Amino acid sequence: MSMEETLFKTVGIVGIGLIGGSLAKDIRTFGLAQRIIGWNRTAAHAERALELGLVDEIAERPEALSAEADLVVLAMPVNILAEQLPKYLDAARPGQVFIDVGSTKMALLDAVAHHPNRAAFVACHPMAGTERSGPDAAIDNLFRNRFTLLIDTDGSDAEAVAKVSALWKRVGSVLATMTAEEHDRTAALLSHMPHVLAYALSRTIKEAERNQALNARFAGGGLASMTRIAHSPISMWQPIFAQNKAFLLAAVDAFAAQLATFRQAIETDDVALLNQLMK
Amino acid sequence: MSMEETLFKTVGIVGIGLIGGSLAKDIRTFGLAQRIIGWNRTAAHAERALELGLVDEIAERPEALSAEADLVVLAMPVNILAEQLPKYLDAARPGQVFIDVGSTKMALLDAVAHHPNRAAFVACHPMAGTERSGPDAAIDNLFRNRFTLLIDTDGSDAEAVAKVSALWKRVGSVLATMTAEEHDRTAALLSHMPHVLAYALSRTIKEAERNQALNARFAGGGLASMTRIAHSPISMWQPIFAQNKAFLLAAVDAFAAQLATFRQAIETDDVALLNQLMK
Repeated sequence: MSMEETLFKTVGIVGIGLIGGSLAKDIRTFGLAQRIIGWNRTAAHAERALELGLVDEIAERPEALSAEADLVVLAMPVNILAEQLPKYLDAARPGQVFIDVGSTKMALLDAVAHHPNRAAFVACHPMAGTERSGPDAAIDNLFRNRFTLLIDTDGSDAEAVAKVSALWKRVGSVLATMTAEEHDRTAALLSHMPHVLAYALSRTIKEAERNQALNARFAGGGLASMTRIAHSPISMWQPIFAQNKAFLLAAVDAFAAQLATFRQAIETDDVALLNQLMK
Repeated sequence: MSMEETLFKTVGIVGIGLIGGSLAKDIRTFGLAQRIIGWNRTAAHAERALELGLVDEIAERPEALSAEADLVVLAMPVNILAEQLPKYLDAARPGQVFIDVGSTKMALLDAVAHHPNRAAFVACHPMAGTERSGPDAAIDNLFRNRFTLLIDTDGSDAEAVAKVSALWKRVGSVLATMTAEEHDRTAALLSHMPHVLAYALSRTIKEAERNQALNARFAGGGLASMTRIAHSPISMWQPIFAQNKAFLLAAVDAFAAQLATFRQAIETDDVALLNQLMK
């Protein structure tokens, strides 16, 4: 295979779960790298990723992975990412490219704004996922026909952006670029706030069950659909809520205002307003 | 076929949409009736149901359907149901059985509480559905492994309850019985309130788009999952909200209180509380 076809010689993936593992699968399927090295904070997950064939080998330490990879994919909770990215960039070699796949960008890009190797980093957010996690959650074609948002690319090396764009296109993603602020406001409305609603709905049902006001086993498909995403891991979502607090609270408030309007329309039998709201 | 196998000679279905049409499909598949007659308020839907083979024939008027059927399935919006059921019961013949498939029961059973033919009616709520509607939305096995709730069966003829129970079991439903009050409280929490949330979330996103704060095409699967049920028809849901107002408002308030607790935990960075809430 020529380098043009493979895009990267060695890809290193730190965090081989749903997103990192699915990207590893696609990189292999589409022949985008010659070798994939992985590392995972939970050693059992790293072993499982190797067993599943998601990666060719497991690095002893993330530093060893980064020393060998020409593309480093950082797929970790956003609080750890903001803390670790500067350290990865400290050791960046010429031509080496770093990407993340995290759900918040303002705090992350603030953390590396003045880093001498900032340009080696391309901030990415593939708008794809499921409620599952860990290497066994990795699936083929997770990114196909989904948007991948590239954030504040003006701060990245143009060649790095071109290579990363090629990667996402080859796995089937549709690309869009925006600023970190646009991203975090968009993600708050389209993803973070809906997750808070799903968690709050799950909790409401559990509390009603605990108070014996309800037997939730009677639920139809609607409730399952509304609470599916509340099965996503807490350790991933709590740092997202914290980093995107301002936009998230604004989105929650916008929703709460709409809910209050619906409540009022239902209470006052305002059919005209309900029809307008539900249109 | 023996009568024992077919359960009913002629089933009449008033409202051959998602629920009525899916029940018609299963009745045919499992050989539970010799003949299925349909009627639909929207004539084009009736013709389509005939074209799809959901029914053997279309009645000219619902009265004609009821005059021939030994089981009459009333699959219509709950406001029309509460208004029409007494009229159907007025003309009930000995041994004839009526069921509904509606989402509210207190108002409905109040409407026939003192009807001389109340016992011919068995109130049913199959906890199954999709966001689609009309005869083209009818699917096989919609009720399989889903609960069907039988409500206030003490007011129904024991033989009618036995026949109706057999019908639901034959299409794969799991039966449970409860009072109308238990039902309406349960349905408010598990179905009606989640629908209000889905509608309010859809509206929040649309308003943000209208204010150009957002491009909703970037949404991932989570939002789609949370708003799927907001595609259900307004004409069906507005009367449900109206009939189950008290329990619905209480459920909305219980949710709003949980959401306020989440909001507070996010605002104050109360990680311990968030972890507890999201557990």
